[in-house]
Amino acid sequence: MYRDHTCGELRISDVGKKVTLAGWVQRSRKLGGMTFIDLRDRYGITQLVVEADAPKALVDAANELGREFVIQAVGEVVERSNKNAKMPTGDVEIKLQSINVLNASLTPPFTIEENTDGGEDLRAKFRYLDLRRDPLQKALQLRHNICQEVRKYLSDNNFLEIETPFLINSTPEGARDFVVPSRMNPGTFYALPQSPQTLKQSLMVAGMDRYFQIVKCFRDEDLRADRQPEFTQIDCEMSFVEQEDVLNMFEGMMRHLFKEILNVDVANPLPRMTWSDAMDKYGSDKPDIRFGMLIHEITPLAQGHGFGVFDNVPYVGAIAVGGAADWSRKQTDELTDWVKRPQVGAKGLVYIKMGEDGSIKSSVDKFFSPGDLQKIADATSAVKGDLILMLSGEKRQTQVQLGQLRIELGNRCGLRKTDVFAPLWLTDFPLFEWNDEENKWDAMHHPFTAPKPEHLQYYYSDKPEDILKVCANAYDFVLNGNELGGGSIRIHDPKTQERMFQIIGIGPEEAQRKFGFLINSFKYGAPPHGGLAFGLDRICSLFGGSDSIRDYIAFPKNNQGKDVMLGAPSIIDQKQLDELCLELRKQEQEGE
Amino acid sequence: MYRDHTCGELRISDVGKKVTLAGWVQRSRKLGGMTFIDLRDRYGITQLVVEADAPKALVDAANELGREFVIQAVGEVVERSNKNAKMPTGDVEIKLQSINVLNASLTPPFTIEENTDGGEDLRAKFRYLDLRRDPLQKALQLRHNICQEVRKYLSDNNFLEIETPFLINSTPEGARDFVVPSRMNPGTFYALPQSPQTLKQSLMVAGMDRYFQIVKCFRDEDLRADRQPEFTQIDCEMSFVEQEDVLNMFEGMMRHLFKEILNVDVANPLPRMTWSDAMDKYGSDKPDIRFGMLIHEITPLAQGHGFGVFDNVPYVGAIAVGGAADWSRKQTDELTDWVKRPQVGAKGLVYIKMGEDGSIKSSVDKFFSPGDLQKIADATSAVKGDLILMLSGEKRQTQVQLGQLRIELGNRCGLRKTDVFAPLWLTDFPLFEWNDEENKWDAMHHPFTAPKPEHLQYYYSDKPEDILKVCANAYDFVLNGNELGGGSIRIHDPKTQERMFQIIGIGPEEAQRKFGFLINSFKYGAPPHGGLAFGLDRICSLFGGSDSIRDYIAFPKNNQGKDVMLGAPSIIDQKQLDELCLELRKQEQEGE
Repeated sequence: MYRDHTCGELRISDVGKKVTLAGWVQRSRKLGGMTFIDLRDRYGITQLVVEADAPKALVDAANELGREFVIQAVGEVVERSNKNAKMPTGDVEIKLQSINVLNASLTPPFTIEENTDGGEDLRAKFRYLDLRRDPLQKALQLRHNICQEVRKYLSDNNFLEIETPFLINSTPEGARDFVVPSRMNPGTFYALPQSPQTLKQSLMVAGMDRYFQIVKCFRDEDLRADRQPEFTQIDCEMSFVEQEDVLNMFEGMMRHLFKEILNVDVANPLPRMTWSDAMDKYGSDKPDIRFGMLIHEITPLAQGHGFGVFDNVPYVGAIAVGGAADWSRKQTDELTDWVKRPQVGAKGLVYIKMGEDGSIKSSVDKFFSPGDLQKIADATSAVKGDLILMLSGEKRQTQVQLGQLRIELGNRCGLRKTDVFAPLWLTDFPLFEWNDEENKWDAMHHPFTAPKPEHLQYYYSDKPEDILKVCANAYDFVLNGNELGGGSIRIHDPKTQERMFQIIGIGPEEAQRKFGFLINSFKYGAPPHGGLAFGLDRICSLFGGSDSIRDYIAFPKNNQGKDVMLGAPSIIDQKQLDELCLELRKQEQEGE
Repeated sequence: MYRDHTCGELRISDVGKKVTLAGWVQRSRKLGGMTFIDLRDRYGITQLVVEADAPKALVDAANELGREFVIQAVGEVVERSNKNAKMPTGDVEIKLQSINVLNASLTPPFTIEENTDGGEDLRAKFRYLDLRRDPLQKALQLRHNICQEVRKYLSDNNFLEIETPFLINSTPEGARDFVVPSRMNPGTFYALPQSPQTLKQSLMVAGMDRYFQIVKCFRDEDLRADRQPEFTQIDCEMSFVEQEDVLNMFEGMMRHLFKEILNVDVANPLPRMTWSDAMDKYGSDKPDIRFGMLIHEITPLAQGHGFGVFDNVPYVGAIAVGGAADWSRKQTDELTDWVKRPQVGAKGLVYIKMGEDGSIKSSVDKFFSPGDLQKIADATSAVKGDLILMLSGEKRQTQVQLGQLRIELGNRCGLRKTDVFAPLWLTDFPLFEWNDEENKWDAMHHPFTAPKPEHLQYYYSDKPEDILKVCANAYDFVLNGNELGGGSIRIHDPKTQERMFQIIGIGPEEAQRKFGFLINSFKYGAPPHGGLAFGLDRICSLFGGSDSIRDYIAFPKNNQGKDVMLGAPSIIDQKQLDELCLELRKQEQEGE
């Protein structure tokens, strides 16, 4: 070993010991003939000192150290006269006897500090330097801790961690697969799993009873800011369970994580909300319940006053913003612009200001009397000093717009604190949704999701309005406005499965081609089963109090799906293409 | 929950309880009006009984159950009159009150028993049924346990589990990569990692200090019986360490596994053997030290007697087989045929039989007097009753042939017991090997492997005989004739790295192209570091006492790289090829 202690462990009780440390020079400064060096490793920072009267060779060596040099330092632990209470090692320093430069360093292209001066692209290219920064070191340690605690909880509950293969064939998730050409079987391709869904169900058919895996999944989608082409799931499945059992088991897992990782006690049991309630009250299937500002339907109160924008639509909804009646015209105009952005798509915003003095003003005073407005205010539980915002249109669409507005207002009002955690379960999702483009029913999740037993009458009905009523035995785990995980009880009997395929228009042949082995396996004694998957990257970022999942991934890809450090993807040799029996198609120029 | 107990947990102390079990019908039999059903789940088997005087509906239901039906059974735990000491639940049975068929089953295509009647292909296609068999259930549980214990040991030793990406670019391992065409960057490809070698070294440069990962790796090689295109490594790396530190840490890990998983105490410290000794004495770089039968060089004793086969070669070696002097001519002829197979490639086999009566007979009596033969016998430590076998030729080649013969003899003599564990470290590998085809030096491991510090004089020498003398700071973990893992101390300083590339003929440009980001990262303060990787699949199979790694992989591929259950690889849509800008090349017919 190049060290006998780390840079994070020496304390006042170690004074007098001769120690050897190794690490990186965080910084070095001269002060009245003495040289102070902050030596850093994963475990912390320890101050080294070279006294003014030290041998000249040592003083020279200390003075020649640059930032990020790797050194081995031998010296005696002494008490600091000038203690630093902010550092765990701040009571001591090492009076150096020798310095051994293990490796020099060029000047790094950005500062390796808590907050760096490096731009995103530069830091991505030098990821191995960016990762030396304390926030990223802590992020990967947090991820490690979460993974170990997940495994502990699930192992203790008789789950087996079972690896499923990466070289498989297409999965029924619907997104685009990454494919891998097979050299041994020319003209054919493996697909990388979008999730191990069918494989974990096979493991239940195989009697493995309880399965989990912390596993990479792959989706070849155009990337948004917080999406990665490869991402990590905590993937789980259980046999002989009903929905209640799955919810209890994984509520327990998340409670374990909140307690062990963050020392936070979350509600027990966790709140549950139906999909329909979430849409009505939060305009979202992943409601942020850290704050109120609920959506209220005010259609009857809003209509019949001659205001066409409200009168000619099926739905009018409102939210009350506490204490915002004094927002300026500029601020409400800004909000109007915000909801009109294409990402939200509302046509306009109507407001009522409930003055502290009892006055009521609105942008529709022409149509509504103060009494009419007061009724609307009452419906939203608004009081003096509040601002009421209203949108109208088709019901779900308007609710979603109000939901987006609500989140934006939550941000503007500082109500979305990263150290407050409000998890809940969302249940009772519709099993089907109508696909306007293809004029057919789609399974809202995947076609193995079971209907709620009490909705079987609708499931076997031929009326579209009944099909719409069928709720799934599906559930999402939602935290602070993010879907952290979701799953369902699966269909395990052939009759229910057949009906599912019938409704979504998948014939027996297509079913065989797409899901053949799984459907066949169900003929040989499939147990009732269900499960779910959590997004590990997102769990880490929320637990870490950050919006960016990239900080919690050692080597993330950028928005073009590139790893700029590795230079991947890249061209490959003609020889390799030949072996794979592939040819690159010349790209056509745009406009040709 | 469909059950309140598993099929493995009821004991005599539970008698009188009303319980609900769920599982698969292993078998059912009638006996004097009573029906006995063995109900199976992952946890065990419990006997259910339907009494002759039970309600007719229940008797009928019991009689209609087929093999592998999934049922829920309610009844009372009663003491068995006819106890089965072989089963943990053998003291009790469940007197049934009701049976609920959760799912029927077609008759499975092979028996779901300890030993099945199904052929390999059939079992592969119905892997979800094969996995219900007890040996495979136990195999995956063993794997789970090993993984959890590995993580526990490494976490306790401050290793962080860090995920590295799967969509990377080519790694310097030398085998063929699986590639993944990029849709967003047409004409370019990702490669699936053959190992996270360069990434884990980057993590050391990033100051992560201690890293591990249980991770899938990919090699597109023509498959041998025990090779899989995707396989799992326990991948580890440490900073600020020397070879001794790495050996101690991972010897500790393996000792922990032997103790926790098998309750076996292995030697402490583990034996170590240099590569050169292993080749001389065992003819193998993965010696099986469970038995003796060492190789002895007898060149001086064998030459000069007029026997051309010995006289005209640089090396003659011998092994003594204890108590085998009475092997028949047929047996020795068989051994001669065995060593002449192309897989071994020896020209012939010379033997000496040391009769129990003191007689000495050999296949070369024409050339050697009994006294000459006795001298050879003495050199091999053979005694009365032993058989001595001799091969001759080029030194290393002949040693390898003798090594193969030794393993074969170990098998024939029953000396290779699967419940005996003899691990050891192999050290002091040559750093370079001469590549006859390309007339150049190759790095025996990878070009980041550090030379032993005491061999630096040879490392910087220009004489080929010096280059050959350079040993690597590399090590293999060997168990019972299998390499379970291996690694090295890495080069971390630019000067040593430059010399490495110089010796193996990689110019600066090629080095940049192949290993650019890693070499660049070394300029910014790389710490001394080293590590290793273990093959998890092989560890599992050896711990489980099996030759087959496939039993320890949930969904393995066959020798053609196919998953016959999934039907992967398969053809993909033209649309997908178009999106990837790829065309399939028509395959030329052989002979055209």
